[in-house]
Amino acid sequence: MDDEKLIYHRLDRKLVHKGKIVDYYQDTVQVPNGETEVWDFVAHKGAAATLPVLPDGRILMVKQYRNALDRFTLEIPAGGLNGSSEPTMIAAARELEEETGYRPGNLELLLTIQTTVAFTNERIDIYLATNLVKTSQHLDHDEFLKVEAYSLDDLLGMIESGTLEDSKTVSAILKYKLFVNPAQ
Amino acid sequence: MDDEKLIYHRLDRKLVHKGKIVDYYQDTVQVPNGETEVWDFVAHKGAAATLPVLPDGRILMVKQYRNALDRFTLEIPAGGLNGSSEPTMIAAARELEEETGYRPGNLELLLTIQTTVAFTNERIDIYLATNLVKTSQHLDHDEFLKVEAYSLDDLLGMIESGTLEDSKTVSAILKYKLFVNPAQ
Repeated sequence: MDDEKLIYHRLDRKLVHKGKIVDYYQDTVQVPNGETEVWDFVAHKGAAATLPVLPDGRILMVKQYRNALDRFTLEIPAGGLNGSSEPTMIAAARELEEETGYRPGNLELLLTIQTTVAFTNERIDIYLATNLVKTSQHLDHDEFLKVEAYSLDDLLGMIESGTLEDSKTVSAILKYKLFVNPAQ
Repeated sequence: MDDEKLIYHRLDRKLVHKGKIVDYYQDTVQVPNGETEVWDFVAHKGAAATLPVLPDGRILMVKQYRNALDRFTLEIPAGGLNGSSEPTMIAAARELEEETGYRPGNLELLLTIQTTVAFTNERIDIYLATNLVKTSQHLDHDEFLKVEAYSLDDLLGMIESGTLEDSKTVSAILKYKLFVNPAQ
């Protein structure tokens, strides 16, 4: 089948609610058979994250309470962009230092994920952060979290057993293990 | 620091809009310093996906146009639950057969992801699907996609180069490679 025949054509996008970190839109979409449907679209300005590796190989993680899940999660440091045009590398360095009190001497893109393509454009650029220098933590006034360092093996064990479930964290650790640090 | 001091207490959850696959809520949350804030919550009933492996080792993928991204994506087969109490294994088998025309002879949980914990409770149980039997595709009336089979090496190459970005797809393929089929 020709790919052209699989394209959905958006006829309208209507803002229903401007939220704090996402905006909810109602899209009117013409699907390939000609029918018209109303779909959800959750607009996000994008985010940046880091996989911060200490000189001894341990990885810095943040433990925080997540309202959407009603429980604690263990995640790599991350945060939203200050506007959709902010370079993700700048945001990644800022969020890392704010949340953990470490400034990265080196950042390189590890991978980009689209978190959930069925309803949002949220995209996270995830950087490998090395040559970390201790500075100090500056959390946002509404941010409360704990920094913890884990060995790669411990984190892989948590992924194997299903303890770690956050998609950016799982994909970053697995990509690091397979493509950057397979020997460790 | 005591974990108890990191918990956010939700004071109110107000439905703003019931969407097609998600519902948008405005939460009022008391953060640990006592301040009250209004946050976004996007409720999702949960989803199921499969990593379908053919007898020759190739993996079935679906190519589809995604309105939220305005482009095509290559993803593992997936779909929403029919209500939040549907067992994810049932949904995974159904979505696989509907989308690809293959019925799984065997399903085992590969991993669970939370797609994006900052604003949604969406959770995807991803099953490894093997012993696939050819039946026939039955797409939903508003679903248009193409089924393609790729070698694991080709998919890993796409993850390495950044061509594959969908979080459920990236994390499922990497977990399969590291923990189920490292030798291939």
